[in-house]
This record gives sequence, C-alpha cells and structure tokens, in this order.
Amino acid sequence: MIKAGIIGATGYAGQELVRLLLQHPQAEIVWYGSRSYIDQNYYDVYKNMFRLVDAKCMDDNMEELAGQADVIFTATPQGLCASLVNEEILTKTKIVDLSADFRIKDVEIYEKWYGIEHKSPQYIGEAVYGLCEINRERIGGARLVANPGCYTTCSILTMYPLVKEGLVENNSIIIDAKSGTSGAGRGAKLPNLFCEVNESIKPYGVTNHRHTPEIEEQLGYAAGEPLLINFTPHLVPMNRGILATAYANLKPGVTGKQIQAAYEKYYADEYFIRLLEEGAYPETRWVEGSNFVDIGYKVDERTHRVVAMGVIDNLVKGAAGQAVQNMNLLFGLPEQTGLQLVPLFP
Amino acid sequence: MIKAGIIGATGYAGQELVRLLLQHPQAEIVWYGSRSYIDQNYYDVYKNMFRLVDAKCMDDNMEELAGQADVIFTATPQGLCASLVNEEILTKTKIVDLSADFRIKDVEIYEKWYGIEHKSPQYIGEAVYGLCEINRERIGGARLVANPGCYTTCSILTMYPLVKEGLVENNSIIIDAKSGTSGAGRGAKLPNLFCEVNESIKPYGVTNHRHTPEIEEQLGYAAGEPLLINFTPHLVPMNRGILATAYANLKPGVTGKQIQAAYEKYYADEYFIRLLEEGAYPETRWVEGSNFVDIGYKVDERTHRVVAMGVIDNLVKGAAGQAVQNMNLLFGLPEQTGLQLVPLFP
Amino acid sequence: MIKAGIIGATGYAGQELVRLLLQHPQAEIVWYGSRSYIDQNYYDVYKNMFRLVDAKCMDDNMEELAGQADVIFTATPQGLCASLVNEEILTKTKIVDLSADFRIKDVEIYEKWYGIEHKSPQYIGEAVYGLCEINRERIGGARLVANPGCYTTCSILTMYPLVKEGLVENNSIIIDAKSGTSGAGRGAKLPNLFCEVNESIKPYGVTNHRHTPEIEEQLGYAAGEPLLINFTPHLVPMNRGILATAYANLKPGVTGKQIQAAYEKYYADEYFIRLLEEGAYPETRWVEGSNFVDIGYKVDERTHRVVAMGVIDNLVKGAAGQAVQNMNLLFGLPEQTGLQLVPLFP
Amino acid sequence: MIKAGIIGATGYAGQELVRLLLQHPQAEIVWYGSRSYIDQNYYDVYKNMFRLVDAKCMDDNMEELAGQADVIFTATPQGLCASLVNEEILTKTKIVDLSADFRIKDVEIYEKWYGIEHKSPQYIGEAVYGLCEINRERIGGARLVANPGCYTTCSILTMYPLVKEGLVENNSIIIDAKSGTSGAGRGAKLPNLFCEVNESIKPYGVTNHRHTPEIEEQLGYAAGEPLLINFTPHLVPMNRGILATAYANLKPGVTGKQIQAAYEKYYADEYFIRLLEEGAYPETRWVEGSNFVDIGYKVDERTHRVVAMGVIDNLVKGAAGQAVQNMNLLFGLPEQTGLQLVPLFP
Repeated sequence: MIKAGIIGATGYAGQELVRLLLQHPQAEIVWYGSRSYIDQNYYDVYKNMFRLVDAKCMDDNMEELAGQADVIFTATPQGLCASLVNEEILTKTKIVDLSADFRIKDVEIYEKWYGIEHKSPQYIGEAVYGLCEINRERIGGARLVANPGCYTTCSILTMYPLVKEGLVENNSIIIDAKSGTSGAGRGAKLPNLFCEVNESIKPYGVTNHRHTPEIEEQLGYAAGEPLLINFTPHLVPMNRGILATAYANLKPGVTGKQIQAAYEKYYADEYFIRLLEEGAYPETRWVEGSNFVDIGYKVDERTHRVVAMGVIDNLVKGAAGQAVQNMNLLFGLPEQTGLQLVPLFP
Repeated sequence: MIKAGIIGATGYAGQELVRLLLQHPQAEIVWYGSRSYIDQNYYDVYKNMFRLVDAKCMDDNMEELAGQADVIFTATPQGLCASLVNEEILTKTKIVDLSADFRIKDVEIYEKWYGIEHKSPQYIGEAVYGLCEINRERIGGARLVANPGCYTTCSILTMYPLVKEGLVENNSIIIDAKSGTSGAGRGAKLPNLFCEVNESIKPYGVTNHRHTPEIEEQLGYAAGEPLLINFTPHLVPMNRGILATAYANLKPGVTGKQIQAAYEKYYADEYFIRLLEEGAYPETRWVEGSNFVDIGYKVDERTHRVVAMGVIDNLVKGAAGQAVQNMNLLFGLPEQTGLQLVPLFP
Repeated sequence: MIKAGIIGATGYAGQELVRLLLQHPQAEIVWYGSRSYIDQNYYDVYKNMFRLVDAKCMDDNMEELAGQADVIFTATPQGLCASLVNEEILTKTKIVDLSADFRIKDVEIYEKWYGIEHKSPQYIGEAVYGLCEINRERIGGARLVANPGCYTTCSILTMYPLVKEGLVENNSIIIDAKSGTSGAGRGAKLPNLFCEVNESIKPYGVTNHRHTPEIEEQLGYAAGEPLLINFTPHLVPMNRGILATAYANLKPGVTGKQIQAAYEKYYADEYFIRLLEEGAYPETRWVEGSNFVDIGYKVDERTHRVVAMGVIDNLVKGAAGQAVQNMNLLFGLPEQTGLQLVPLFP
Repeated sequence: MIKAGIIGATGYAGQELVRLLLQHPQAEIVWYGSRSYIDQNYYDVYKNMFRLVDAKCMDDNMEELAGQADVIFTATPQGLCASLVNEEILTKTKIVDLSADFRIKDVEIYEKWYGIEHKSPQYIGEAVYGLCEINRERIGGARLVANPGCYTTCSILTMYPLVKEGLVENNSIIIDAKSGTSGAGRGAKLPNLFCEVNESIKPYGVTNHRHTPEIEEQLGYAAGEPLLINFTPHLVPMNRGILATAYANLKPGVTGKQIQAAYEKYYADEYFIRLLEEGAYPETRWVEGSNFVDIGYKVDERTHRVVAMGVIDNLVKGAAGQAVQNMNLLFGLPEQTGLQLVPLFP
C-alpha cells in the first residue's frame, strides 16, 4: 500500500483527494493536514466522511510527514509548497503539488503573474509538469510533480493536438472558459455566497487570470515557439465542471479531416480522453465525478476557424483525479487504478 | 459473475443501476431494456456512459431475458412488472422490482391508491419487502423482491426503532418529506422543466401520495397494529436527495435516553445507517451518490415530541443502491459489495 | 414625499427596502446607513443599483437621522434598535424595526430565546406588532412598529383563521417551514457558500429557532390562551421564498367547509392574501418579488387533520414589503401604495 | 390607454409582456392569445397572475384582434407572424413581432438559416429592426417592428460602438454567449428538464445558431460592409440572463482611450445602457428583471485585442422589455414609460 499524506486536506480539492484515495485499492491516507482545523475530526469538517474517516486534522509539518509517507499531496495556496520543500524531503518521499508553484518554468513569469517571490526556484527545473496524457514518460521517474491547474488541464488538452500538428494560427487562439463554483475554494468570501453566485454568470480575471501563462507555456512547447492567447474564465452557478470553448483560425487549406486525424493521433488510445462523435459537443454533466475529458469540435467553413470544446470535472481531472493519476505513474501502477469512475448523473 | 438484466434502463433509477452495476465486482449487465429507445446506443441516451457501455437498448421481453439473466431489475412504471411476471420466469430467474407492484400486501389498498388493477396478485404473498436493514433474513431466499420506494425507505428507517420500541403515539406521526427532482423521473413534462422547478419549493400529493399506505403498512408491522400517518412530499430544486422530517408525540414518560437507545439497538451495527452524533442533523449533501442513510433526532421537552430526521440519496438507497443491496442478499454476497461508495461532495 | 432613512441598508432586507422605496411614488430615501461600508458608494455594494442610487453609505447615527427622516427602518441585527432608540427619537420620527427587538411582549422570553439583554424594555409595551392584516387598526397611530419575522409572517397568516375560529387543537400545531438562502443574510459564512447550500436541503434550529416564541405569542392571542407549537425551519437551495407547511388536529366535528369559511372570513378582502382555489397548493415561485401571501389547505379525513400551506417572498412580505406596508399605514396612505408588484417568473 | 393584444401570451416572453404591461401606466391588455390554452384561465397557466389577470386565453385570430387592439405583440414561433400579417391588419393596428420573421432583410438568408419559406416577404422591407438605441428615429413611424432576438440584442449592443467607429478588425469578431434556460422556451422537452440542465453547462448551435446572421447583418450596417463572425451560445443553469463575451482584434494603433470614447459617444445618454466603470465587468444578476444592458470591456495589450462584455435579462431587454420600449416609441410615449424597473436581487 502506498502511504499518502495530504497537506491541505480540508479544501475542496483536498477533500476530493480523500474521496478518491479512500476508494483506491493500493493507497491509504496517513495524514490529513489542515492548519485551519488542527485536532478536529476530519469528519466534522466534511460530514460525508462520517464513519469513513476516523482521523483528526494535523498540522502542515512536511518534514515529519516525509518520514511517514511515500507520497505527499500539497493542495495548498500558492507559495506554500515552495516554502516547505527541501532536499531532505525530496530524498525521502515524492511530492505531487496541486498548487502552481512548480508549473511554470520561467520563475519571472511565475512571480509576475502570482505576485509572490518563489522560495525554492532550484527545484523548478526538475519538477515535471504532470499532464499525464502529454508528459507520461517523464512523470514516472520524478521526485516532484507539478499537478496542472483546472482551467489549464481542460484548455491544453482541448487544443494540444491542433497546435502540435500545426493546424492553427498559434496567436489566434482564444479560450473562453466556464467553471463551477468549487473552483473558487471553500473560503468564506462574500462573492461566493449562494445568493451571490446563484442565478448569475460573470466573467472574471479578464486578460490577467493566472492560468494564462501556464496554458501559453505548455501550448508553446507543443507549437515549438512561444505564443500568446486570450483566456477568459467565467463563474457558473453549479458545483463542479469546467467547459473550455476554444477558437482558433485554421492555417490556409486545413480541413476538418485533418482536425479529426490530429485528435485521433493523440487521443484515440487515451482512456481518460473521450473524443465525441461528430456533431456531439461536450457538457459538464457527463463527466461529473469522473476523471474523463470529453472533447468535441466543429470547423466553421464560413470563417475558416475551428471551435474546439472540452469539459472536465474540475475537482477530478482538474485536481485530485489527475493527482492520483500522477501518483499511479510515480509508483508504476496502471494509470487507471482507482480512477475508473462512472460519471454521476443526474 | 451475476448476470443482470434491467427493464427500464433509461429512467433515472435504471441509469443509476447501470452506474452501480458497472462498478460492482461480481455483476455484469446483459440487457439494457428500454421500450422508448429500442436499438439506440445506450450511451446516446446517457452520454456519461460513452465508452463505458457498448450496448444497444432492447425491448421489455422479460421471458427471453429470464433465460439470460440471473436477476432482473424492473425499474418501470407501476403495473408493468405485475403484468409480465409468471411462474416460468420466477423459476428461471430472480426479480427485484423497483416499482410498487409488490410492495403492498393488501391488493385492495394497492388498487385504490394506484388506480390500476393488479395483474398478478398471486405473487404478492411471496414477494419480500426489500428493506434490507429490517427484512434481511427473509430476502435471501426470495424469488421476488419488492424494492421499497424512495420516500418510504427514508421515512420508515427514520421512524422504525421508535415505533418498534413503542416509544411514540402511533397515530401522531407526521412526516414532512422533501425530494430532489430526479424523483419525478425523466419524462418530458412541463412542471419538471428547469425554469419551473428552479427557485421554488412546492408541496404536492398532499394527504394522498402513494407512498403513504406503504409507510403505514410497514410501520404498522413494527407497531403491531395498524396506524395512520400524515405524509406530505415537497419538490426541492436539486437533483438528488430526500429529507424526511418526522414528528411524533412521545408516550408519557419517554425520555431522550430511550430514543437514543432505540436507535442504537437497531442501527448501531448497520453499515449503511449512520446515526449522527447528538446535536447533528442530516443534510442531503452528505449522502449524495452513496447508499448511506443519515439519521438524527431531537426531543422537544416543551411539546413532549420527538423530531426525527433522515436523509438518503433517492436514486441510491431510495432505488438502485437498495436494489443492488437486495441483489447481494439474494446471491449470498456481503451486503456492501459494490456499495462502499464515498458520498460525492460538493 | 415621505423621507425614509434606512439603518442596515446593505443587508439583503435593507437592499430590498431600497428597491421598493425607489419604486414607491410617495417616498424617498434620505439615508443609506451601513456601518460596514461607510463612505462607499451604495452601488458598489449592490451593483443592480448602479445609476439608480447616487449616495454613499452612512453611519448608524439614529439621533441625527431622526432629525432628517419621517420614518426610520432598522434592518439590523437583534439588539441594535433597542440600544439606539430613545424618547427624543420617537418624538421626532417613526420607527419600523425589522429586527426582533420589539416583537415579543414578554421580555424574559425575548432574552431567553435571543440570549441578549433588552436595552429598552420600556418601549416594548407601546410597540405594535406590524402584521398588517391582523393589527391594521393599531398600526396607524404607532410610533414604533415591530415588523414581523419572515417565518413568522408566513406561519401566522397560514394558521390564524383556524386558530382564531377555534377549529383546531391549539397544542397540536406543527409547522415545517422551508426558506430560500437570502434569509440567512449576506454574512460571509462557510455554511452559506454556494457549494455548501446548492444541491442540499437541511433542517436547522430544530425545536429552538427564535421565531418559535413569536409564532406562539401571536397565535396565542388568536386562540385566547397560550399554546405551544413545533417549528422546524429548513434551508433550501434557492434565493428567495418561504413555504410553511402546517399540520393541526381538527377539533371533533370540524369540517372542510368550516375551514374554508374561516379563511374567507378573514382574508376574502385582503389584497395581499390570495386564497387559492380548492386543490391548489402554494409554490414559492408564484409570489417571488411580490408582497403576496398565497394560502391553500387540505383536510385529511383519514387522520382528521388539516394541512395548511402558505408561501411568501421572505424579502418582501417577510421583511421589506411588509415594512413598506407598515409605512403606508403609519402615514395614512392606501396600504397597497408602491406594493402592487407583479410576481417575477421565471 | 393603449390597447394591446398578445399572440403567444403563454410562452415565457409572452408572460413577461403581461407582467410589464400590467405595470405600464398607459397600456392595457385586451387579448391573451394562446392556441395551446384556449378558454383556460390565464392565471391557471401562470399562477403568479392569480387575482391579477381575470381573462381567458384566446385563439390566434389576428384579424379580429386587429379591430380591437392598437398594437399586437406576436411572441410566437418563427413563421407564424409572417403567415398571418396582411395589409388590412397593418392598416388597422401596429405590430411588434418578437419572432425572427422580419428581422433579416435578405429573405434568402432567413429561409436558409431558419429552414422555412417566408410567407410575406413583401413586408420585410418596411419592417423596422427594433433595436431602439440604434434605430430609434425610424421606429416611431413604423407599422411593423421586428423586435430583435435576445442574443442579438446583447451581442450587437456590446460591439456596436467599436464596429461603428472602425476600431476593430471586422472579421475578427468572436462572440461567446451564455444564456439562462428561459431562453429555451416553455416547451416540454427532455433537454430542458431540471435534472438535465442543473449542474451543467453546454454549448449548442455551434457555428450555426440562427442569431448569427442577425448579428452579422446589423454589425455589417454599422461597419459599412458585410462581415462574418463566430457566435457560440451556451446554456447555463439559471432562469434568466444573457452574457455575451466578445473578442475582437484591435486595428493597428487603437488604444483603450478610443474604446472608451466610442462607448461614451453612443451610450453616455442612454438610460437603459449602463457603461460600467473601469475594471468592472457585467454580471447577469445585476440586471435581472430590468431593461438594463450593462457593458464593460478590457483591452489586452499583450494580444492587442479587446474583450467586450455585455449582459441583459433575456426576457426583458432581450424580449418583452424591448417590445414595450418599441411600443412606447410607436405611440410617442417617453421611452422609459413602464420600464423603470429596479433589478431584483438576489
């Protein structure tokens, strides 16, 4: 059994990790870290866990935890993982960091977009960007995995084959994304109150959301050159789910057939990516509770653009599910172990 | 592997059965019955099942199905199971009927409340009421199990120990129940449209909802005498979940300690029933997607009443989960097989 | 024009008062009081008011306000109005208090249920309980009106005629109430976050909600003797609306005809109370945004009980609308002035 | 008093017209047309109207209605108005058509996108496109007003000043729109059931939604040349509201100052258009129930694009409110008559 510790176990992503690891046949949770709820029963924080988890919340002591756990998940605010990690810890255990600390290779970009100083830039280089479908081979041997962001996972996977195959104008990409409210976290903030979110939709972080450079970096690797995108997230009155609607100008002469071929080339054998049949578009309800990414597209002959659409459950493939997928890779398990989840509907 | 056939696989309860059986280690689905969608891909009806189910919908041919399946689940409108079942079928296979056809022992009451003629009253006697926590020993040997209704499961389990132990005035029981909208089924009816249900709560079936006699019969068995209740269901703008808030006058001298003891006597060892700690009340969110029943109560010294509250996921413990629990009993499997589901939150 | 000041203008009830007074033909708002947002633009707190309100939030200075306003609305936490009011203020202006401070005549009951000391018990006697349909004649001449609570308005009006006419057993009344989330206020608290409220229903304040003694006192006046009830509120995932489902044992021999006659006797001529036709039950969606109370009932011959149901918009008839109705009475205006609001649906 | 008849009074837009006209000081409704509910009480179809409307639904007899009404609103499916209108009717009364029949000047485009034959193309020429803020002067003298679509109203008003002033590359415009579910109408269709819409977001009509050519035509007039756009609508789990997020490449050298100046030039004096302050973006909740259009924008220096965002209540400014605004213009009333509605929140 893989011994897993969670730092930040009482956020929504942390709790989802608990849900997935409890159902994982080869993992057990040895540490429920939560600074806010130290010494409280975990099930008092999340009553769905009553009678399922019989542990108390513990402090964020990564050093001690490193001695007990085979893998540490950090589902914490930006900056925390970078401030705690060190050589001794990385020698003892593996880390899957769900924060943004090690996602962006250019530390200046990280510091500019996040507005904080990076406390351990020396590990940025070795950290592997844990988007399993793309970086699978490099994850297995890593000590430190940077688990991708929710919007970024959905956005990158939706556009990757088209960019990789050079079918679209790189700088024409516009991603209009929509997220359920669990993406905003469990902090007690007025804008996230039920009555403020319900019966409304709003854009936010227009032109400056922090997931923008992460998408640009990864799609830039695929393109073989830097690129700039527009990314606009929106808050939707639902609990879970992200939909990315991406627009791009096709390069001259590119046809729908080539688009289809590109998606199949990269995703036909991927268990977690479901390429929808022609004319079908993804809807968040069909992936809820699962690690699936549903992708569809439509070529617009009139404007010579492609509209590509992808959906994920932001807490699963966008956070905890992908983290477990990375854990599986780190420990040589079949990638789907504990993740063959049938989406819950309705 | 248990071969399972489903008649009515494209209703919400039928689809939930599919979800649970796909994740069940010792069952496989051999028949996706659906008169409305014959020959269509099951995943076109429920796109969450894309790439998970590769079968087409089939007709409601119970005779043919009986030759192929070890167990048949009928998740169909009232009257259908009773019109199809016969001796030959019951000799070949077992039936778990999710409709009301075999729940009520007095056929006159059935016909009066449901307004239809019962087509095979000869099987009412042998049918076992499949409320596992109460009728467990009798289910194992049955050929025909009447899977309880959603409201009834929640209502009966919430009140059973108090009635059984004679702590409350039997005819004082009032149950005010609230259900998510999946309980209304997937029929395309105006009152169930999003804009009609959203941002509203309403009572319906006041004094004449069909689950009333079912609750009365079962609680009557517990009481050792017939009893009458008031039962009022309400429609809540959410997908899943039932909350039953039950009121009863305590018999003279009855104390909170006795109430607590009664609940513990019957439920302390039940895996699927979680007795909440003192002062905690159940909320539907904490059982979503699981087979749990959460129960709490409060004694009101001022009025000498008890307020007992229970919640379930109407599609799981209120339908498909309980059906699988019954299947497990029918085939001698541990009752929790395939049902150790961690509630999905948020 | 009536000059109105609002203390607590940035809570949900305060904001609803602003909405109603802006549309009132004979009132103008002269003071937007809000301790939390002093000197901020009111429209920055509620952006629906952009270009409609050009004022900044001000402190809770009731003394100064008394010199400027013909009427002061206090939409503030319990205890504040009682701590600010004094003879000088009451000489200069009229007060409609939306808090509970002056609703309960027995100060000991108030202090016990609210857990705070009453700072000006000397005004409890003269304060008029502002349930207009019942206390209409006494409100006109008052200096201080205690605006009823949301649950209480709905509960009392639903049961009043039956109690007043002596048709039900007084101590048998059980009220199971359901409220939208705006009733919980705009405080940034974890339990009121979107993801915590959405897709769930829960009971709270079981046997000890503060509106209980208020309902008991008022129904007790109607009954001509003290009575005890059970009152259980529930939180529903919607913004607005309260539904009260009330149960009571009919006195021997009481018939449905008498129930109907009682409702007609008291409500047939009330503009804001809509007695539904036989067989129709109230739903919160049909009163949203309006000052209406919709009431329906069903007599259960089997159990000899009546199930009476009422709905209101908790922010209108349950708070701001009733406050304006009281203002109209205080200033001799037709009671419907500014309140002929067509319910907004969907 | 203006005598108004409504054909299609029982759809959501028709019902919203009823709500607005009931509160309009100079209009009265003389005809509640609804083929589906002939001879039924209007309040039985919409119970919010109980005691407010005392009329029965009538047939779609436009000829007879023309003799009784000063203005006829047709809130009907595409094709109906075109099939009923004739010279005699237009001589007797004015028509505000809420369907698409007379919106598009090129009948071939209409027939291609809507898939139906136009039955009275002879009136397309004289029909005035009723986007009041842009076509105000031409509406006053019209006999037949084509009330704009919901998505189109929001999309066009959001982009109009930028296109009109030549600040953006015309063929670069991409509009990603999101709508509440009332836009899908009140038909009893499975995809619009509560459980299908709730907890999900989906795109639909990708590249071929019928509002596309309407937006293109109107923005083409503003641009002085034909243009092509991408328009993608999405269904959001809420009742009301449309958000259009529009992207366009700025022409070389164009600055944020010019964008601001363009919006102010056209909208500074418009009552119903609220230009938000810098850094504020529109949210649908702030316009609910009102005729307002809230618009904000952000220039992205990195990509040299503008992201312009607009919101409306789809049933008000997107349908019934704009229809009343057109009626006011037709009859020489101040444009805001009956439309000074304070948005309802929460």
